[in-house]
Amino acid sequence: MEFDPQNLTYNAQGLIPAIAQDAGTGEVLMMAWMNSEAVAQTLATGRVTYWSRSRSAFWIKGETSGNTQQLQEFRVDCDRDCLLLKVIQTGPACHTGRRSCFYTLVQDGAERIVMAPDP
Amino acid sequence: MEFDPQNLTYNAQGLIPAIAQDAGTGEVLMMAWMNSEAVAQTLATGRVTYWSRSRSAFWIKGETSGNTQQLQEFRVDCDRDCLLLKVIQTGPACHTGRRSCFYTLVQDGAERIVMAPDP
Repeated sequence: MEFDPQNLTYNAQGLIPAIAQDAGTGEVLMMAWMNSEAVAQTLATGRVTYWSRSRSAFWIKGETSGNTQQLQEFRVDCDRDCLLLKVIQTGPACHTGRRSCFYTLVQDGAERIVMAPDP
Repeated sequence: MEFDPQNLTYNAQGLIPAIAQDAGTGEVLMMAWMNSEAVAQTLATGRVTYWSRSRSAFWIKGETSGNTQQLQEFRVDCDRDCLLLKVIQTGPACHTGRRSCFYTLVQDGAERIVMAPDP
């Protein structure tokens, strides 16, 4: 079946969540949002491109930081309202300098940071 | 730091996305939503509990199907607006009977189903 970026289920803001997963290790790196044009650009260029909700602008991951995401695999879920991207991540994915954004563990009622920024 | 479910960033509907990942294999199984009470219940019971947007009700994963998710690890992302749950998944995670909801691959402009329902 032909893929059409319009044929996904976007929220009221026209956005769909996209989970980025390290293609090699399986580590979940981050979750961000795309609009249909970001979906199309990501597939066309192989460079993962989100929609920045805070800046209301396209966000070509790594364009300023160099910490790019090269698309390896693009998947849609059963409800067509979430994307899973397997990527080759250059440098840290998180703006804090950590490999992944999910560096805070909740355990026994407390939060604990379990990942240091990349050296 | 003490963890307080209220101290997360929820959307206008009071919900936060939660990614479920197989604790053993690292496979991303599904993404669903939680409200603060579902977060609290998940942590208190160790049984992953979402908020069903279609039914407007708590959704104790597997309560009717038996395909439960036992919580192994609970993580919060840097912006506190997304959760990552490492789980022990009993049976398929997807309502289609597949292990994961992300069974549709987009490649070369076409969609292709790359996972069969569990036997």
